[in-house]
Amino acid sequence: MEALKRKIAEDGIVLSDQVLKVDSFLNHQIDPVLMQQIGREFARRFEKDEITKIVTIESSGIAPAVMAGLELGVPVIFARKRKSLTLTDDLLTASVYSFTKKTESQIAISGNHLSKDDRVLIIDDFLANGQAAEGLLSIVKQAGAAVCGIGIVIEKSFQPGRDELVKKGCRVESLARIQSLEDGKVTFVQEVRS
Amino acid sequence: MEALKRKIAEDGIVLSDQVLKVDSFLNHQIDPVLMQQIGREFARRFEKDEITKIVTIESSGIAPAVMAGLELGVPVIFARKRKSLTLTDDLLTASVYSFTKKTESQIAISGNHLSKDDRVLIIDDFLANGQAAEGLLSIVKQAGAAVCGIGIVIEKSFQPGRDELVKKGCRVESLARIQSLEDGKVTFVQEVRS
Repeated sequence: MEALKRKIAEDGIVLSDQVLKVDSFLNHQIDPVLMQQIGREFARRFEKDEITKIVTIESSGIAPAVMAGLELGVPVIFARKRKSLTLTDDLLTASVYSFTKKTESQIAISGNHLSKDDRVLIIDDFLANGQAAEGLLSIVKQAGAAVCGIGIVIEKSFQPGRDELVKKGCRVESLARIQSLEDGKVTFVQEVRS
Repeated sequence: MEALKRKIAEDGIVLSDQVLKVDSFLNHQIDPVLMQQIGREFARRFEKDEITKIVTIESSGIAPAVMAGLELGVPVIFARKRKSLTLTDDLLTASVYSFTKKTESQIAISGNHLSKDDRVLIIDDFLANGQAAEGLLSIVKQAGAAVCGIGIVIEKSFQPGRDELVKKGCRVESLARIQSLEDGKVTFVQEVRS
């Protein structure tokens, strides 16, 4: 997605060979117009998949997921990383290991909002080692729902997340794929435009 | 806002005299079409205020804030409740006490994204005791920016948050104002329609 790649090239900050900071439009400050474009692009890529629900994870997945939900005309559920006063019924949970924080945490979704008839699109802001996406995948499967695909805003293609998900049979659609952050520079994977 | 009040009446669950659960369209599952309507209503109420930034707090504030940002054509910043790998520069912080969880926590925004020239609309999902809104207010003032108003999706008018904010000179615009949750029933404040 060219508009996104341009934004990353202009406003992304390479903190190290592993870490790209996009706090000015995705992870802290959010650009709503770009989110709308991202939502439309996810909707375009999954328009034939008869999606009934989008599942994401707080907090940075919410904006792109809600815009995609608006375009596809389906509700969005965000998995919680923290305990919630009102999130108590029939919880589906998964453990997610964070390589950057070196901690394991629980994520949870209420089983009330997912059924075996649902066709789910999982959306997240980043794909690196794939731990968050695999946690969401596990939760959706616990509900007996079908996972139609995984939509990622920014994929760090030099990390193993994508391959792990593809190995599990998932379709992964990433709007920007980063080949390398070496030398303080963002290099994108060269792709034939679809 | 009639569509919101209808949704609360139909899908909200009164857990106690104090707690309304709206996990099916706002706090866990999100209804993107309703969020768009909410965003438009906030934009309508603040269209003459020359807003330059919206400030909210993760996670449930993000969806309504991003939709309002889209309508007003301004960026959204969400305050973080947790530490972030990339949120480290020039932090503006405030303490927020949670009456329900009986814990005090820190919220933070990077000062990079707020300046003294900004005219800020604060948006949040719920207003009860006003602690989150007051924390955001403190952060925006630390940046030297002007607070043009506070937009709330659901106000529990029987709790003191609104009065505290009004006492501080804030304009508070709540899209649904709940007078009482007694007897397991949602009763709205009767308002002359604007």
